[in-house]
Formats: sequence, C-alpha cells, structure tokens
Amino acid sequence: MRTILVIGIGTGDPEHLTLQAITALRRADVVYVPDKGAEKAALRQVREAILARHAAPGTRLVPVAIPRRAEAGSDYRGVVADWHGAIADRYAAAFADTLPDGGTGALLVWGDPALYDSTLRILETLSGRGLALDWQVFPGLSAVQLLCARHRIPLNRIGKAVTITPARQLGPRLPDDTDTVVVVLDGDETFLTLEGDDLEIFWGAYLGTPHEILRAGPLHAIRDDIAATRRTARAAHGWIMDTYLIRRRGDE
Amino acid sequence: MRTILVIGIGTGDPEHLTLQAITALRRADVVYVPDKGAEKAALRQVREAILARHAAPGTRLVPVAIPRRAEAGSDYRGVVADWHGAIADRYAAAFADTLPDGGTGALLVWGDPALYDSTLRILETLSGRGLALDWQVFPGLSAVQLLCARHRIPLNRIGKAVTITPARQLGPRLPDDTDTVVVVLDGDETFLTLEGDDLEIFWGAYLGTPHEILRAGPLHAIRDDIAATRRTARAAHGWIMDTYLIRRRGDE
Ligand SMILES: C[S@@+](CC[C@H](N)C(=O)[O-])C[C@H]1O[C@@H](n2cnc3c(N)ncnc32)[C@H](O)[C@@H]1O
Ligand SMILES: C[S@@+](CC[C@H](N)C(=O)[O-])C[C@H]1O[C@@H](n2cnc3c(N)ncnc32)[C@H](O)[C@@H]1O
Repeated sequence: MRTILVIGIGTGDPEHLTLQAITALRRADVVYVPDKGAEKAALRQVREAILARHAAPGTRLVPVAIPRRAEAGSDYRGVVADWHGAIADRYAAAFADTLPDGGTGALLVWGDPALYDSTLRILETLSGRGLALDWQVFPGLSAVQLLCARHRIPLNRIGKAVTITPARQLGPRLPDDTDTVVVVLDGDETFLTLEGDDLEIFWGAYLGTPHEILRAGPLHAIRDDIAATRRTARAAHGWIMDTYLIRRRGDE
Repeated sequence: MRTILVIGIGTGDPEHLTLQAITALRRADVVYVPDKGAEKAALRQVREAILARHAAPGTRLVPVAIPRRAEAGSDYRGVVADWHGAIADRYAAAFADTLPDGGTGALLVWGDPALYDSTLRILETLSGRGLALDWQVFPGLSAVQLLCARHRIPLNRIGKAVTITPARQLGPRLPDDTDTVVVVLDGDETFLTLEGDDLEIFWGAYLGTPHEILRAGPLHAIRDDIAATRRTARAAHGWIMDTYLIRRRGDE
C-alpha cells in the first residue's frame, strides 16, 4: 500500500497554505511535481517556493510530465477522459519508479483539489486499475474564494443559491432561477456575449499573485475594458488565469 | 479610520488556518468574539483555541453579544436585513468603545467569509452609516470544501456546473439543468423529501471537528439512516451543523 496526500496550495501565494497542508507536506517522502510545459512556468515557481519553504529537508522531488490535452470538439468529456487516462499512466509510472511500498507521496494541487481539477479522478482511475493506493485530501483556497475576498463581496445573495460554471456551459443569458454565477475556465471572453442590462461583474486575474488585477462594475459598461486588460496582460506575462462573478443588480 | 481584518478560520479545526490568516490575526490590536449563546459553545471553543495559539500576546478580546434572529416567515430577506441591522448596532458600539482611531480589529469568521455569512454585509452597513472603516478579507476553508475533501470527491462533474444552495431554495427535484447541488443551512432534513431514483448523497456533519460524521450512498437507500444519525448526534452534542452534496448517478 502506498499513501498519497493531495494538498491544495491556493492560487499563487505561498501564504495561502493551511497549517494542516504544511504538516501533510512534511510527512511526504516524495513530492510529485507536475510539469505542464513552459507556459505554466509561473505556476511552477509558486510550487517551488512552497517546497523550498515548507518541505522537510531531504524530501525527494519527482517531476511528472503532463501530456497536453487534445482540442475538445463536441466530445468534451471523451477528450477529457482520454487525457486523464494518459496522465494516470504517467503517475502510475512515477509511483512505481519512486515510491516504495509503505511510502507516502504528495501531490500539490492549484487552488482547491475539489474544484475543476483532475487529481482525484486520476487517483480513482489508478485505484480502479488495481494499484494499492490510499489517499487523503487537504483543501486549499480556491480562485473563487480569492475573487470574493479581493472584491470583499459575499459569494451568495442573502438566502439565495449560487452556481459555479465553466464558461462553456454558460448560455447567452443567466438562467432565470439564478441571480449569481461564477465563471471559471473562460478562454473565450464569454462575458462579452452575455445579454442582460441588469448584470454586474466582479472580475479577477492572477489572483493571489503579484500580478493580480481586479475590475468591478456594470457588465455593459466595463466589459470592453476587461477584455482589453486581459489581452494586454496575457501578452505581457505569456499566460493568464482569470475568473469572474456575474450577478443581477439587486437591492440588498 | 479604523481597519478591520475579516479572517476565515475554517470549520472547526485550528489547523485549517492559512499562514496569511495567522499573520493577519497577529496584526490585530483587538479581536471581536461574537457570542451567540450557549448552543454555539463548541464553536466558541474553536475560536478560543485559535486565539490561544496564534494571537499576539496582549491582544485584547472583546465579546460581542449577537442577538437571535426572529423566525423567518414569508419575508426571509426582510427578517435577515433587520437582524443584520441589529448586529451592526452591536459592532458599531463595540468599535466605538474599544478600537481607537488608527487601530486594527479582527473578526474571526467560521469557514469562508464569502459563504452564507453576514460579516461583509454588516461592515458595508456600518460604512454606509458613515463610520470611517476600511476592511480586508482573508478566505478560510468552507464546510463545502471539507465535505468534498473528506469524501474525496470533486465538487463538480467534468466540464459541468455546480450549484450551492440553502435548503429553503431547494425544490422537490433537482433542476433539470443541474447535476450537482450542495445544500447548506438545512434544519429541516430537506433531503428526506427529494424525489428522483438516480440521486446519490454525500453527507457530513461537524466537519473538521472531533465529532465528524460522514455518510455516502444512494439517496433513497441511506437517507433514513442519515436522518436518524443526525437526530441522535444533535441530541448528544446539543447542536449540529451539517451539509451535503446531491448528484445524479453518472458514468464518469
Ligand atoms: C482548472 S481550474 C482549477 C481551479 C482550482 N482548482 C481552484 O480551486 O482555483 C482553473 C481555472 O480556475 C481559475 N483560476 C485559477 N487560479 C486563478 C487565479 N490565480 N486567478 C484567477 N483565476 C484563477 C480560472 O478560471 C482558471 O481557468
Ligand atoms: C451560516 S452558514 C456558514 C458557512 C461558513 N461560512 C462556511 O464557509 O462553511 C452555516 C452552514 O454551513 C454548513 N457548515 C458550517 N460548518 C459546518 C461543519 N463543521 N460541518 C458541516 N456543515 C457545516 C452547514 O450547512 C451550516 O448550516
């Protein structure tokens, strides 16, 4: 049996770590460091800063090369499933090569491991293939929490529901029964196509990092500025991660 | 100008604190400790453990008596608004009495301050009344994150949206366009009335505390057990906080 600690590290600031995440990290014999290629170098630097500061001396670091996902056409879930299978192969090989029976490995996950991240599904896959694995999950601050904290807004309206959605599931209008939507994974500036005069947006990019950018206001009035800001920043840094909350203007 | 640090403390384990939350706590001259009466004594103990361990020596602790909310009939938001006004009065008095101009106070918030918590609205109210206040928010681990971590499940299905809702907004069926709902603030065992043979539930009570209880399985098969477990535990401890995730059984 091998033990894997899945550790949420927050969204860019090593100070986002919880005490229990630090304790977990120090229990690991080996830390697996996903390598997603050059464009994510900034994210890798955050992981390295965390390890330099918190990992026990002598902890072994093992890079795991993460294959790129194929372009998703209509079969989004099929493409993602294939990609998870390929990632699972890499982890299976890394565990076999570097983690002895009885050993403890750690996986550092951006934000919170429960939110739009594949690590838990990959461990299920490996376990389903017969690998003797046990794992524990340590939550981390998510981009959604950082967005609200920086704008100093509640996620929800009083007594109301809130929906978190990938941009690809967002239609041209907010569903009638929802008054707050948080959008992640938007590579296409979907906020530019949303209809409705009564919407406000709270947008954040590079949350928790030194490059953090915030914008808030009526969606129609500021969305062109957000799009322009986004493009300029992405060109300057070579990458961008952004998220936003949309809600109907209300009388709270 | 007075500065208020709104600090998320997680859901019951002092090890949930982030490094930045600890740093913030140590910057405070005064920590305001809400007192909600006997039934929440267990929660107060968590706060006290955090303060004993992390607050700077000499930090002043000021209890703030929080009035009870009136029973909400049809006018839920009106009742909540009145209640927030009454809480704001107590904080205004506490700040006036104990926080000098230029001073820094801290408010410790259960879980994450963005999720179904009134602290940010109360500070807006005080600021709207003309009090010269500045405030910053430090996210904390929420009950929703703990629920997923303990069950080792992702919050969302691959590529899909997820809705977080108070129980009072949940109808007898999951909305057709949703396949995952997380329910908070359920005093009425709403899970007993949900229709649909294809639903599974992941339930957790006292998450992060030594009394933690977890149940997971097909909703119809296990909901009576959850209801019975809930009642027994509430009787034994004198209080309960629980939350659950409901999703359609899928083929992920
Ligand atoms: C694959 S998801 C992973 C989310 C992560 N597990 C979390 O809890 O934040 C990546 C998406 O999260 C959001 N995101 C992650 N980090 C961010 C950051 N530092 N600033 C803004 N958005 C971020 C973006 O919407 C991005 O497309
Ligand atoms: C007023 S809301 C506050 C939520 C809090 N701000 C958070 O982020 O978890 C209280 C609800 O959160 C959930 N909750 C809070 N703490 C919990 C715990 N330790 N275990 C299970 N559920 C909890 C319950 O659904 C409860 O009714």
